[in-house]
Amino acid sequence: MCRYAFALPFALACALPAMARELPPKPSTADVIKASPAADWRPLDPDNTLYMELPTGRVVIELAPVFAPQHAVNIRALVRDGYFDGLAILRSQDNFVVQWGDPDENSPRPFKTAKAKLPGEFTVPLKNDKEFTRLPDRDGYAPQVGHSHGFPSARDPKTGEAWLAHCYGMVGVGRDTASDSGNGSALYAVSGNAPRQLDRNITVVGRVVDGMPLLSVQPRGAAPMGFYDKPEQMVAIKSVKLAADVPADQRSKLEVMRTDSASFKAVAEAARNRGGPWTKVAAGHVDLCNVPIPVRQQGG
Amino acid sequence: MCRYAFALPFALACALPAMARELPPKPSTADVIKASPAADWRPLDPDNTLYMELPTGRVVIELAPVFAPQHAVNIRALVRDGYFDGLAILRSQDNFVVQWGDPDENSPRPFKTAKAKLPGEFTVPLKNDKEFTRLPDRDGYAPQVGHSHGFPSARDPKTGEAWLAHCYGMVGVGRDTASDSGNGSALYAVSGNAPRQLDRNITVVGRVVDGMPLLSVQPRGAAPMGFYDKPEQMVAIKSVKLAADVPADQRSKLEVMRTDSASFKAVAEAARNRGGPWTKVAAGHVDLCNVPIPVRQQGG
Repeated sequence: MCRYAFALPFALACALPAMARELPPKPSTADVIKASPAADWRPLDPDNTLYMELPTGRVVIELAPVFAPQHAVNIRALVRDGYFDGLAILRSQDNFVVQWGDPDENSPRPFKTAKAKLPGEFTVPLKNDKEFTRLPDRDGYAPQVGHSHGFPSARDPKTGEAWLAHCYGMVGVGRDTASDSGNGSALYAVSGNAPRQLDRNITVVGRVVDGMPLLSVQPRGAAPMGFYDKPEQMVAIKSVKLAADVPADQRSKLEVMRTDSASFKAVAEAARNRGGPWTKVAAGHVDLCNVPIPVRQQGG
Repeated sequence: MCRYAFALPFALACALPAMARELPPKPSTADVIKASPAADWRPLDPDNTLYMELPTGRVVIELAPVFAPQHAVNIRALVRDGYFDGLAILRSQDNFVVQWGDPDENSPRPFKTAKAKLPGEFTVPLKNDKEFTRLPDRDGYAPQVGHSHGFPSARDPKTGEAWLAHCYGMVGVGRDTASDSGNGSALYAVSGNAPRQLDRNITVVGRVVDGMPLLSVQPRGAAPMGFYDKPEQMVAIKSVKLAADVPADQRSKLEVMRTDSASFKAVAEAARNRGGPWTKVAAGHVDLCNVPIPVRQQGG
């Protein structure tokens, strides 16, 4: 880099090209959030928000009825039936998922108003997803990726399908081998590197928008797939409630950045091309699952 | 899918096309490991293996001297000086990294034989990496990705550089703004979705090959960047030793699948195109950081 230095009087002359390689500073994600107008944020819809109360605190899950309409209905029914209250976290597999549901295989808790089986909602027709904002970044798992209604999503114009992507914090429906063997009573959250191979193989119902650290630190289970081999290792779920059923003063006051907003586009760019001085080389790319979807207390 | 059903006597006639869409079974990663010859595995080199002893157990780290030769030398010096013994886990940021080092900013532990600063080893010349096995899968962050000497790596033939990729479990060198402000005394392990934007911006020195769950479950710190705001939240490091300095009978007896072996190629394919019956749609792609690098007890 300093091959002409021998012809120059001062070693300092080499500093110029080196400094020229420094990246200029750029707005960070925090800067973008700070500068964002209120209109670029939305409150959570109480009818599509779940509160899972653990001994360590509240996990807030936003449902995605556009992508899993039948499962959203069934999960609301399960929640209103009190199905999850007193159940447990069953499984924590390192670099994969944390799963919760009924620990009692021998006499499982019955379903009341909820259906016991639902057809898998692995993909939806493209036309159902009217709010897709495409990322310019390429993806190995899908022809197009971006965000829809606040969730990371993917689509294939050739097959006419759209689906939610298995990024960190996304919530899916555990199932057996049959596509229709799930109903939302066994749910998991992604707690490791995005297992995108699950995309289009499972019904994704939403995203943990707050409290993910309460799930991600759960000790990994010693049995295969991270299941706990001793009942005392399981964490009990105090309750899962729909936000709409919780008194307004006990609701979490969160808002999510709109993924079709100019601010969100700037968030993606801040992740794609970081400025200096700490960063020396900007990636020039951001993976779908590395774009943060900002969540904050209402009003910032 | 059943549009000719009306012309057929039995609804059952529709089952044929549906079944034709089922994926045939294929060997899983576990099947590939089971069938792998002994020659496709290698023991860990005791001179490039660290044991970090935590109250909850041992974390085994393999160093990558091909990619960070000066840092490997310095970390060996730090370890042999007992530098890490009694230090602590300082930081756990959800979906990002767990970092350890000296909690005492006011009177930091002095360096003895180790250097206090080293030039960043963010990339190495392509020619230094003689064992690259390329993945056919495309990547957003680098022109070529694959594995070198047991580590996920990337390269750019245009710039002539190769580097280690920030996948789950990879270990990097914390630094300040200056490229040469790290020396291996502050290390972190990736505990979330691969932060590939750090590639080429930081010296990556190796990988956690065993014990990652001991780090990944560390409670997330409440201060910015996941730093613990109370000293009692920090987990003390009992010691960090080089395996070569530990009596043979106290060493972990691990072996790693050779990433230039036929078995490893089959592992990547098992992750890329899963067979049925659980999987309904094979991804046809595997992200660099979703290829597992198998580790097992010696002799399987």
